[in-house]
Amino acid sequence: MIPMWSDIVKTALNEDIGRGDVTTNTLIPAGSEIEAVVIAKEDMVVCGIPMMAEVFRQLDKRVRMLPEAPDGTGVRAGNTICTLRGPGRAILTGERVALNFLQNLSAIATLTRQYVEQVAGSQTKVVDTRKTTPGLRLLQKYAVRVGGGHNHRMGLDDGVLIKENHIAIAGGITEAINQVREATCHLQQIEVECETLEQVSEAIDAGTQIILLDNMTLKQIEKAVQLVDGRAILEASGNVMLSTVREIASTGVNLISVGALTHSAGSKDVSLRIIGDKSLKK
Amino acid sequence: MIPMWSDIVKTALNEDIGRGDVTTNTLIPAGSEIEAVVIAKEDMVVCGIPMMAEVFRQLDKRVRMLPEAPDGTGVRAGNTICTLRGPGRAILTGERVALNFLQNLSAIATLTRQYVEQVAGSQTKVVDTRKTTPGLRLLQKYAVRVGGGHNHRMGLDDGVLIKENHIAIAGGITEAINQVREATCHLQQIEVECETLEQVSEAIDAGTQIILLDNMTLKQIEKAVQLVDGRAILEASGNVMLSTVREIASTGVNLISVGALTHSAGSKDVSLRIIGDKSLKK
Amino acid sequence: MIPMWSDIVKTALNEDIGRGDVTTNTLIPAGSEIEAVVIAKEDMVVCGIPMMAEVFRQLDKRVRMLPEAPDGTGVRAGNTICTLRGPGRAILTGERVALNFLQNLSAIATLTRQYVEQVAGSQTKVVDTRKTTPGLRLLQKYAVRVGGGHNHRMGLDDGVLIKENHIAIAGGITEAINQVREATCHLQQIEVECETLEQVSEAIDAGTQIILLDNMTLKQIEKAVQLVDGRAILEASGNVMLSTVREIASTGVNLISVGALTHSAGSKDVSLRIIGDKSLKK
Amino acid sequence: MIPMWSDIVKTALNEDIGRGDVTTNTLIPAGSEIEAVVIAKEDMVVCGIPMMAEVFRQLDKRVRMLPEAPDGTGVRAGNTICTLRGPGRAILTGERVALNFLQNLSAIATLTRQYVEQVAGSQTKVVDTRKTTPGLRLLQKYAVRVGGGHNHRMGLDDGVLIKENHIAIAGGITEAINQVREATCHLQQIEVECETLEQVSEAIDAGTQIILLDNMTLKQIEKAVQLVDGRAILEASGNVMLSTVREIASTGVNLISVGALTHSAGSKDVSLRIIGDKSLKK
Amino acid sequence: MIPMWSDIVKTALNEDIGRGDVTTNTLIPAGSEIEAVVIAKEDMVVCGIPMMAEVFRQLDKRVRMLPEAPDGTGVRAGNTICTLRGPGRAILTGERVALNFLQNLSAIATLTRQYVEQVAGSQTKVVDTRKTTPGLRLLQKYAVRVGGGHNHRMGLDDGVLIKENHIAIAGGITEAINQVREATCHLQQIEVECETLEQVSEAIDAGTQIILLDNMTLKQIEKAVQLVDGRAILEASGNVMLSTVREIASTGVNLISVGALTHSAGSKDVSLRIIGDKSLKK
Amino acid sequence: MIPMWSDIVKTALNEDIGRGDVTTNTLIPAGSEIEAVVIAKEDMVVCGIPMMAEVFRQLDKRVRMLPEAPDGTGVRAGNTICTLRGPGRAILTGERVALNFLQNLSAIATLTRQYVEQVAGSQTKVVDTRKTTPGLRLLQKYAVRVGGGHNHRMGLDDGVLIKENHIAIAGGITEAINQVREATCHLQQIEVECETLEQVSEAIDAGTQIILLDNMTLKQIEKAVQLVDGRAILEASGNVMLSTVREIASTGVNLISVGALTHSAGSKDVSLRIIGDKSLKK
Repeated sequence: MIPMWSDIVKTALNEDIGRGDVTTNTLIPAGSEIEAVVIAKEDMVVCGIPMMAEVFRQLDKRVRMLPEAPDGTGVRAGNTICTLRGPGRAILTGERVALNFLQNLSAIATLTRQYVEQVAGSQTKVVDTRKTTPGLRLLQKYAVRVGGGHNHRMGLDDGVLIKENHIAIAGGITEAINQVREATCHLQQIEVECETLEQVSEAIDAGTQIILLDNMTLKQIEKAVQLVDGRAILEASGNVMLSTVREIASTGVNLISVGALTHSAGSKDVSLRIIGDKSLKK
Repeated sequence: MIPMWSDIVKTALNEDIGRGDVTTNTLIPAGSEIEAVVIAKEDMVVCGIPMMAEVFRQLDKRVRMLPEAPDGTGVRAGNTICTLRGPGRAILTGERVALNFLQNLSAIATLTRQYVEQVAGSQTKVVDTRKTTPGLRLLQKYAVRVGGGHNHRMGLDDGVLIKENHIAIAGGITEAINQVREATCHLQQIEVECETLEQVSEAIDAGTQIILLDNMTLKQIEKAVQLVDGRAILEASGNVMLSTVREIASTGVNLISVGALTHSAGSKDVSLRIIGDKSLKK
Repeated sequence: MIPMWSDIVKTALNEDIGRGDVTTNTLIPAGSEIEAVVIAKEDMVVCGIPMMAEVFRQLDKRVRMLPEAPDGTGVRAGNTICTLRGPGRAILTGERVALNFLQNLSAIATLTRQYVEQVAGSQTKVVDTRKTTPGLRLLQKYAVRVGGGHNHRMGLDDGVLIKENHIAIAGGITEAINQVREATCHLQQIEVECETLEQVSEAIDAGTQIILLDNMTLKQIEKAVQLVDGRAILEASGNVMLSTVREIASTGVNLISVGALTHSAGSKDVSLRIIGDKSLKK
Repeated sequence: MIPMWSDIVKTALNEDIGRGDVTTNTLIPAGSEIEAVVIAKEDMVVCGIPMMAEVFRQLDKRVRMLPEAPDGTGVRAGNTICTLRGPGRAILTGERVALNFLQNLSAIATLTRQYVEQVAGSQTKVVDTRKTTPGLRLLQKYAVRVGGGHNHRMGLDDGVLIKENHIAIAGGITEAINQVREATCHLQQIEVECETLEQVSEAIDAGTQIILLDNMTLKQIEKAVQLVDGRAILEASGNVMLSTVREIASTGVNLISVGALTHSAGSKDVSLRIIGDKSLKK
Repeated sequence: MIPMWSDIVKTALNEDIGRGDVTTNTLIPAGSEIEAVVIAKEDMVVCGIPMMAEVFRQLDKRVRMLPEAPDGTGVRAGNTICTLRGPGRAILTGERVALNFLQNLSAIATLTRQYVEQVAGSQTKVVDTRKTTPGLRLLQKYAVRVGGGHNHRMGLDDGVLIKENHIAIAGGITEAINQVREATCHLQQIEVECETLEQVSEAIDAGTQIILLDNMTLKQIEKAVQLVDGRAILEASGNVMLSTVREIASTGVNLISVGALTHSAGSKDVSLRIIGDKSLKK
Repeated sequence: MIPMWSDIVKTALNEDIGRGDVTTNTLIPAGSEIEAVVIAKEDMVVCGIPMMAEVFRQLDKRVRMLPEAPDGTGVRAGNTICTLRGPGRAILTGERVALNFLQNLSAIATLTRQYVEQVAGSQTKVVDTRKTTPGLRLLQKYAVRVGGGHNHRMGLDDGVLIKENHIAIAGGITEAINQVREATCHLQQIEVECETLEQVSEAIDAGTQIILLDNMTLKQIEKAVQLVDGRAILEASGNVMLSTVREIASTGVNLISVGALTHSAGSKDVSLRIIGDKSLKK
């Protein structure tokens, strides 16, 4: 349904395969058919099953993939994530690219879930940022949703966020808000980045509906919540860690954005094992 | 020189900008010209300067970038990495994409240097793997080189690595090596993945020139080194950590491959600050 | 700055030129240099100057274009819109594509201005729809802005509009709003299409912030305005004509959307005339 | 069969969908299956059925489309144009793009038929021009054929048309014809644009086979027909209207070209209605 | 001017360079600047200078190329074709691709000139066919023109050629001509492939303007020329060789088409030699 | 499996079809179904069957192709290479492109086999070069393998070949080898181009594993073989002909590279004949 997924997968395959998988094309007979499983080698929230399916589909439509742990499922080390059956060449050639998607997206979903669990019970949502790996934003933001987080804007075009640098050039928060209000679509709200409580007051007075509290201390955040008193959505941002997120949520902010969800989730350990092989009869 | 860099950058810009940067296009006058610096917010080995330059070049050829810490330079928190001068719109619109390249590649270069420093004094090289982020392999492998590491093969087409699954289907190590030797270009050597010392012996007997010791214990690696006795290049692989890499190197293996260099380096903290702005006279 | 403009222009040039302009390449010497003007042959609001410039830039960077009536300028039949100087081949080969952009976008800007002038004095904004010519949305929505109109959402991804068909499947307005509120980014507001006053009441009760009054009579619109009483932004839509738009605006709706702005603006008559030619000395 | 159709459709879908249809993906369950009809809301000649089918095919191969009024069929307001059955998400996400093709192409086919009916009984053919919407030429020229018109050349590469500007630079009609005759493929005939009867005489003497009578009065066209007396194909061009086309045809010209067919046909009113929905069983 | 040239060159560079020129990037310093000459190692008609310039331009805009033998020039073994100055990396990396264009296109131009010289003094033109190397048609047909030949149609879309297989399905020559005449643009003439004199008669009677005499003997061609007696353009085709082309021309046919011009011209021997190198000062 | 094949085919089809096959679309009914055979008109080694299949697959998935002489089969003039059944339009529109692949690749496979047969009985392998037709390298190198030859490196990125120009700039053979050894992947060996026996000695001393003997006489090659005495792989290159290749092989060199395999193989004569047609029932 979303055409861009297949383009990202195509790019990744071209990048890895180049002019052809010399080893596999030499050693695996064209008619070889195998069965393989993808195994979690550590605990994780699975994410990336549809991308893996697309990897194999692009290589050979005859590969069938049976997910045993669909995206969003928590699995333990040793669990099977999915089973693959089909032409041996396609499965071995696609293995690394498929796992590269799985290991990155599962790491993001897993880390997101950890943050989300920390704020459980509060009204606060954990949201991502635009600090994603170039080329993978669509998928990484999907992984955040799979992990229970929410997405901030997807790009520079689908939301207005007036940042420090914009304010400086526009000549102040009020000026910036006024200029933007006229220019944007009625479906888009305006968010303003504030570094001080004075700025928060000014933004509220200028009629903004969302305020990003940038790198504020817990104390400042608490005061901002009191000051705003429900007149705007508040997003806390900057240096949020697993160990501090619950405390920040307890201030009553609506959103906490965490760049680490996408840029520092690392990788989950997964592997593909062949469990059977035979020649294709045809 | 390498056309693919510019394609990766173009994809990243399209992904972020979509139909246009609403905020910047509204608030920053077309003629605005600014000066900005990119600052390291933690210690790191810088990597990504050419990609940042390409980001801004694609947005507006008038942006000039003066690197103060070229790729490979170690910088301290607070140091300036580069200075930018030019149209305010291009600099603000490109900021996030440029920093996304910088934060990822610098993290890889920094982590690589840490591994390389651990094995300093030995003959052992630290090499990367194909466990890269989909779409960024060319750049991430460049970052490994910037950090002092070496590259393993770039893709499935420019090197032969006979892995466990290939061996199983080909019917054994000797069979696999013989089949591949006939098929490959004379410029390519053959590497074989071995999990036991018996396999190492068989691979040597079959005339392989490079052996990957897969997930072996330190003890096994030592024995493999003795067994092979210089008749092949040895690569240790699997669960290598910063804390164990030196010990592994001390066995005398030629190469240690570390997937974490590219899949778990995380992100270095960098930011862009405007330090001056004026209207473009023309 | 916006990379997609250049892609649209490239597509248009390829479409027209194919394997090469036989006539021009035969008759116009490679070194020929000419001066030409683009003339309005009827009154219009000019729109498309940057796209014309891009057409000629892609064909030959030496073409210089001096706009005499920048986008948004009202001109009379006979006025010069811009002057072109440079290689004769590029100017003649690009002529038709450049004028095709200009004639379409100027027609949209002109028609938009007529609608905008009709509602002058009211608080109502004239907005466009997604009923654009496939492939040209970005440019046609730009033309609406040039004409003084405002843009509704650019695509299905940068705004939520719950339409009749969505409501039917979701099981009602309230259900739909609740489901969407959880899923969307905090920067996006929710608009709901209503066909009756009962639906308007339900949408308000469910907390929607924007309501599209679909194909309502003037009477119904008036009642909706009273009913809503400022609790939501109201958009009137459906069968809006130049002759009725003022009356609709007088009801106090915030927005009136007009599909005709982009799908039925037609074309403005423009032509290119050579006013001088000489051989390039070099 | 014609690969470019699918590329145009892909571009249009990307343009509209961007990063995904938020509303539909949230409100329509993945397994939902619906039945819908596309209805004409005014009288028209239908055109665009294959492009609509391609829109839905690209989104989801399971959508089935049953045309009830194939391209070229005249329908009345209220008639069903086609029925759609399949996944609800694909149908709702593709609706607008599909209708955008249909409304534009049907308008062109309808307008063309009106012109063609005006000249019925004569030998004169109605032909289009290169004044098409950038990116849609292939489809718009198809719509002209569907409406009963004929196509002039498709682009600058598949026919020679020596225009006023070419003549001026080449140094005269005779010179231009001679130069072009040597350069072109034997399958291509040469058409020359003439503004006066003297030019017509010169073009005939120089051996041209086709003459475009540019912006001539009815009187002049009549004289040109007499003067040429069957020695060349004559095309009348410039300011042709529905109200004047019959009279022009009565002069005996072979072709009348009408830019308005493609640039000013506007849009026909069509809509999509859901007539049933159920969950996909699988 | 012709955008497709640059796309063909880009494809060729990507194909050769892949992930980067390891040898050159290692051995040639980034600042190295060299001077080189391209030498003909056998007699030839030069063709491909603009494509070579494009190769180097895409790699590095600083490379300057001074053609000493522009396209169409006959050179002797040992002559310099062009001189190159600029960054050593770009020149060495682009060398092979640039020469691959030059050696193929010069061979075509040279062979074409040999055919053209054979028919000198006659009215007969030597034309090419669609038997070109996939992907290079535009350039190979350009080389034919450079060699003094003429182009037959460029593709299936810019000329009508009714072949044996079309005639069989359409139900005869007359039927085919009538059907096509109605469908095609007035700028396109109709060519019919005939294998017998009876077919030639039928084609003439049906009003075709061009006839392809397919694989006829010299005798048959002579009779066809007499039979047609100037009522149509005649093209002789099939098994034309350098040794037979003059004789065929002497029959008075208008065109002789030669597939060998593009599919069997082989390659001319050319090489690049460095004649100076220094470091770039900057 | 190898995605690039389909891209090359797509480019070739676009190049030939452009805006559509006027003749076929007019004369062949949409429902027409035919059966055709592809015939060899001279003796050859067949190569290109998968590319032909891809041509027809892209035009219409309903075309079925039954190869009677798979790639690598030697056929005689008059033999059937494959049979095609399916929609008449797709088969006639794709005919020329399909045959263009077949005629070029079969010529390469045939010429390669002739070289390979010349060296039969020796240990010497016949290898190709990078002197391929731009855009077709992947396919032409495949044809060399089909003919029994071996591939040299595929591009500048998958093998190191230090050539005369590199040596000159690097400051000597030893220097060049040392610099490259540090930079390349352990899977890649280093080949050095030598023009004299002194260079060969130096290269051996510097530890190179492969030496290209450039344009040496038979005498020199013999001496080089003695000098090297098995310490490196030797490749003879330059002016190798069918008549000399056996003699060169008798010197004991390991590889003989032949540019002519790809750049001067010419074309094999093949044709497509319809052997049956009927209407599609549906």
